[in-house]
Amino acid sequence: MHIEAKLEAMGLVLPAPLQPPPGLRLPFAMVRVRGHLAYFSGHGPQDAAGKLAGPLGKVGSDLTLEQGYAAARQTCLAILGSLKRELGDLDRITAWLRVFGMVNVAPGFTDTPLVINGCSDLLLELFGPEVGQHARSAVGMAELPVRIPVEIEGEVQID
Amino acid sequence: MHIEAKLEAMGLVLPAPLQPPPGLRLPFAMVRVRGHLAYFSGHGPQDAAGKLAGPLGKVGSDLTLEQGYAAARQTCLAILGSLKRELGDLDRITAWLRVFGMVNVAPGFTDTPLVINGCSDLLLELFGPEVGQHARSAVGMAELPVRIPVEIEGEVQID
Amino acid sequence: MHIEAKLEAMGLVLPAPLQPPPGLRLPFAMVRVRGHLAYFSGHGPQDAAGKLAGPLGKVGSDLTLEQGYAAARQTCLAILGSLKRELGDLDRITAWLRVFGMVNVAPGFTDTPLVINGCSDLLLELFGPEVGQHARSAVGMAELPVRIPVEIEGEVQID
Repeated sequence: MHIEAKLEAMGLVLPAPLQPPPGLRLPFAMVRVRGHLAYFSGHGPQDAAGKLAGPLGKVGSDLTLEQGYAAARQTCLAILGSLKRELGDLDRITAWLRVFGMVNVAPGFTDTPLVINGCSDLLLELFGPEVGQHARSAVGMAELPVRIPVEIEGEVQID
Repeated sequence: MHIEAKLEAMGLVLPAPLQPPPGLRLPFAMVRVRGHLAYFSGHGPQDAAGKLAGPLGKVGSDLTLEQGYAAARQTCLAILGSLKRELGDLDRITAWLRVFGMVNVAPGFTDTPLVINGCSDLLLELFGPEVGQHARSAVGMAELPVRIPVEIEGEVQID
Repeated sequence: MHIEAKLEAMGLVLPAPLQPPPGLRLPFAMVRVRGHLAYFSGHGPQDAAGKLAGPLGKVGSDLTLEQGYAAARQTCLAILGSLKRELGDLDRITAWLRVFGMVNVAPGFTDTPLVINGCSDLLLELFGPEVGQHARSAVGMAELPVRIPVEIEGEVQID
């Protein structure tokens, strides 16, 4: 339970399962495991109870870059919560592979990599440079569900 | 031929191979198989003859949510048509893994998950909760090729 | 060194490692290898020295379709440069699998497949129809980092 001890030492709490807002039916799995690959669905920032966490809206107008970075970090915690529930133990992750970071952008906001760094920095801090390393994109979307500022999906390798 | 019997019982027909509109050269494979993974390219809604099916345009202005849902369901059938041609038999699919759903959105349209449900619902109905389950994102794009309202790509596991 | 001989015969040079513009911290790997899969991060067009290459901006307003095609071809060379550094030899690539092409679009620009053809055409020319074949999407983004006109990520199989 190495990673979870680290999370606790950093004072970080993994959120409860996503509680979608009324009317938002989500007929799919937050994590899909086959063999040594676990695919995680697009996640957004969640509060401790599992609700989508504000501020909502577009980075560059409704949110500052710093708020976008914080949202990406919170999204990373939501992903870790889903992986923990599916895998039982986050130490089963042997490698992060692909992180696809999507930012809900105001027109002209192009600092999307600096937003998604909120996720990458936390992954590297928690898992270290070997396991935590990952391929990544960080791009600007026209709209995201429920006006979340950040959505991230990807893949990890598991033992 | 379990899945294809189900399709027939549901009165659903898989479209013919995509006939791109004049001038749209597409130098890639609709499905790429290596080992136990099949990657499917971005598909849009097709009619029975393989032509891109209308209504075209943006969900939230040119199309209603309901029309977007129907387009996602039709896109799913186009994907199944490509997989059938490549794999020979849709029963070779042992697990859906990743579904990346892209919606051509009018500004402010954020119900993208409810649109892509048109694909997820059909997958789960056809393949059941074990094989049909999948990780998913459903996000809003600035533009899609030829103004299709929905485009979906992803991966399946095969035997 | 079959592929690199081809590149040389075609007069093509792989760019140096990406030199991000000041302030753009990129804490991730351009290529992530595990087992027989190599995931490559979102790349943009680079010049020989590794700097992001202009023209920057949106295809359909700041760039013509032809300039977008050239940017996608240049992006492909940047990807090949990263793969060469990580794998040692591009002949280790046994199959291109997934190419996800993102175009920074001006409103109404929907010829995104014709832009990303700049990458697909080069892959097929270099690697041939067996190894170079790939699944693909080519879609329109609201914004891309540093206003690059094209960003491409994906996966290859290696021996």
